[in-house]
Amino acid sequence: MAKLEVHEIAGAVCAPLGFKVGTVYAGIRKAKRDDLVLLVSDSPATAAAVFTTNKVHAWCVRHNRERLAAGNIQAVLCNAGNANACNGERGQSDDQALAEGVKTALQAAGHFEGNLLTASTGVIGKHLPMSEVKAALPTLVAALGGSVGHGEQAANAIMTTDLVPKFVAIEVGAGKERYRIGGIAKGSGMIAPNMATMLGFITTDIAASQAELQAILTRVVGRTFNRITVDGDTSTNDMVIVLANGASGLPLADREQEFEQALEYVCGTLARKIARDGEGATKLVTVTLINPPPLGEKIAKTIAESPLVKTACFGNDPNWGRIMAAAGRSGVEFNPSAVVVRLAGHEVFRDGEPTAFEPAVVSAAMKRPVLLIELEFLGSPKSEPITVWTCDFSYDYVKINADYTT
Amino acid sequence: MAKLEVHEIAGAVCAPLGFKVGTVYAGIRKAKRDDLVLLVSDSPATAAAVFTTNKVHAWCVRHNRERLAAGNIQAVLCNAGNANACNGERGQSDDQALAEGVKTALQAAGHFEGNLLTASTGVIGKHLPMSEVKAALPTLVAALGGSVGHGEQAANAIMTTDLVPKFVAIEVGAGKERYRIGGIAKGSGMIAPNMATMLGFITTDIAASQAELQAILTRVVGRTFNRITVDGDTSTNDMVIVLANGASGLPLADREQEFEQALEYVCGTLARKIARDGEGATKLVTVTLINPPPLGEKIAKTIAESPLVKTACFGNDPNWGRIMAAAGRSGVEFNPSAVVVRLAGHEVFRDGEPTAFEPAVVSAAMKRPVLLIELEFLGSPKSEPITVWTCDFSYDYVKINADYTT
Repeated sequence: MAKLEVHEIAGAVCAPLGFKVGTVYAGIRKAKRDDLVLLVSDSPATAAAVFTTNKVHAWCVRHNRERLAAGNIQAVLCNAGNANACNGERGQSDDQALAEGVKTALQAAGHFEGNLLTASTGVIGKHLPMSEVKAALPTLVAALGGSVGHGEQAANAIMTTDLVPKFVAIEVGAGKERYRIGGIAKGSGMIAPNMATMLGFITTDIAASQAELQAILTRVVGRTFNRITVDGDTSTNDMVIVLANGASGLPLADREQEFEQALEYVCGTLARKIARDGEGATKLVTVTLINPPPLGEKIAKTIAESPLVKTACFGNDPNWGRIMAAAGRSGVEFNPSAVVVRLAGHEVFRDGEPTAFEPAVVSAAMKRPVLLIELEFLGSPKSEPITVWTCDFSYDYVKINADYTT
Repeated sequence: MAKLEVHEIAGAVCAPLGFKVGTVYAGIRKAKRDDLVLLVSDSPATAAAVFTTNKVHAWCVRHNRERLAAGNIQAVLCNAGNANACNGERGQSDDQALAEGVKTALQAAGHFEGNLLTASTGVIGKHLPMSEVKAALPTLVAALGGSVGHGEQAANAIMTTDLVPKFVAIEVGAGKERYRIGGIAKGSGMIAPNMATMLGFITTDIAASQAELQAILTRVVGRTFNRITVDGDTSTNDMVIVLANGASGLPLADREQEFEQALEYVCGTLARKIARDGEGATKLVTVTLINPPPLGEKIAKTIAESPLVKTACFGNDPNWGRIMAAAGRSGVEFNPSAVVVRLAGHEVFRDGEPTAFEPAVVSAAMKRPVLLIELEFLGSPKSEPITVWTCDFSYDYVKINADYTT
């Protein structure tokens, strides 16, 4: 099919029809900054989600699996500053109490008939200040609104050590055949494939069945959120949720391929924003394999997660040796002599040895906000390129992470 | 069997009978510090070795496999400052020419009838300054000697970014029933399981067959050198070589278990010295699993390689959450609620939640040159403990690695 034409629009998760969002400061984090976010659809929506694969996970992850199975999702409640994970049985009852509390507050404020999902991010092993959080719920519901400002506020309120809010929205189609997809995300620490302390909330006004929405989301996450990595760590609380409320009246079934491309645009944009904002990052690093061998994604991820490659990116050091050494230890079969390595557009390695490149020239080219590392596999059977996104590894990464809880 | 009684002695690789070593500056590294080491046995020895599993490896690794198969090994030549890897066909002929050159020089100087192995470490992708190196070979052979000083000099000459030389020697048995094992090693950058830029040369005067020596070395490396990790990177040139020349007259076959314990003492000591001297390290970190589940080594290595855990160790941050999150993403099945975590001897996590520990007290306890991280798996079937060694991750790690080649 033709390449998708995408129009970015304002409003983040409020850009699609029929979604509202509210934020409030509920005393969860020390800094007096909104830390509780409620996303509501005017009517129950179809929901799909992808969760962390970490064996150690928070109650919201476990509960959401059950809630999704029950269907009829109309809202998502998210708190920042406390992951409500690894804190014993109380974590479980707190998560349930929060969900019930918001449901009651929404019903008291008017029309709400669905179920809701929860999400938490922040320090793990601590209890939520439940009386303060419960007291804040009516204010949170009263704060609900669908303006552009509301959508962007939500992106701010879910941040932890993120430096910038991450949001995007697009409109696809024309005239009456238009639908919208909006999203907010947070990342920063512990970003790795399989949903590291990473939250993504996506809204769309397309009409979808649970099965088709879940199938598309799973594929898209595999090509976007699961291809970013900051330090190889995956967290206890990661999730990406999509709510499709059908308010556009357009059925997904009529435009599956187009919708998948559109969702990939939204998720890919958010994923790159997360990688670029990795803790202490000074640049976005993309690792692209051209004509990769089978299991090539493992090569790309091994390069992207290598602390030696990442510190070289920070230092603008054209150290192709570390790139090849990382590729070599990935466990994937390939012929090292048939690999061409390009750094920031400069060919630095071919035929099993370095080219006659000028280190100072390549180093200067590496000093860009986006650094491209490319590996081309010559003479292999034709295959689709693979790109993984990461960031460099700086002094600030160590500084931010050496003293987090104490 | 009874626990082995070990007596540490001086002399490193020269401690066992019948070994000599020489070092010389051959113009390979910029700093005028010995960079070429020759280890010779008075008579051809039995040799065993373990090599890097990296798909991208140096010619010395490939050649040594063939040389080992030919047997009759009498010497090892090692250069520091240049890995002679990823530098095209010339790398191959340079490695062969060096081996031939040393053989000729040794034969000219007297009795030498065996084959020799080569090893290189340092920057990859550069050619060796062959005419200078060849010119230095007679001086190198003339420098051969078996004193304590010779053994320790060799440990110095193989260093790259190592801060301290690494050597050890032991004597086992009493009276006429005595044999010795000595070793030198280098590590520092790119240390990871499966032989990261890590060299280990071990000598012993026990008499062994190739098959028994190789079997024991392979098992011992699995429990020592392959259980240290600095940054998960493995290099192109790693190897551990053992030469057994039989000069003690004692056959290995009569004391296999004892010798295995003794070799483990030597390799374990060198491995811990390597981990402690990881680039930028301020402390040795040991990750011990008590009663681990099947595949527990993967849990220990995932914790030991997590940049988030390692930066927390640097910052003396009792962040059990990162430890549990790393364990959880290791891919190994276990029950998180049945895990007890102890940090520097303090219990910080039990029954799925943090204990009531005092962060400042635990943080103070973490400020030691050796930091113990322990995970006990309650209620699992009894199993052997597993220990992995690593170091913390400091500002200096980034500094050292951000600007290495340019």
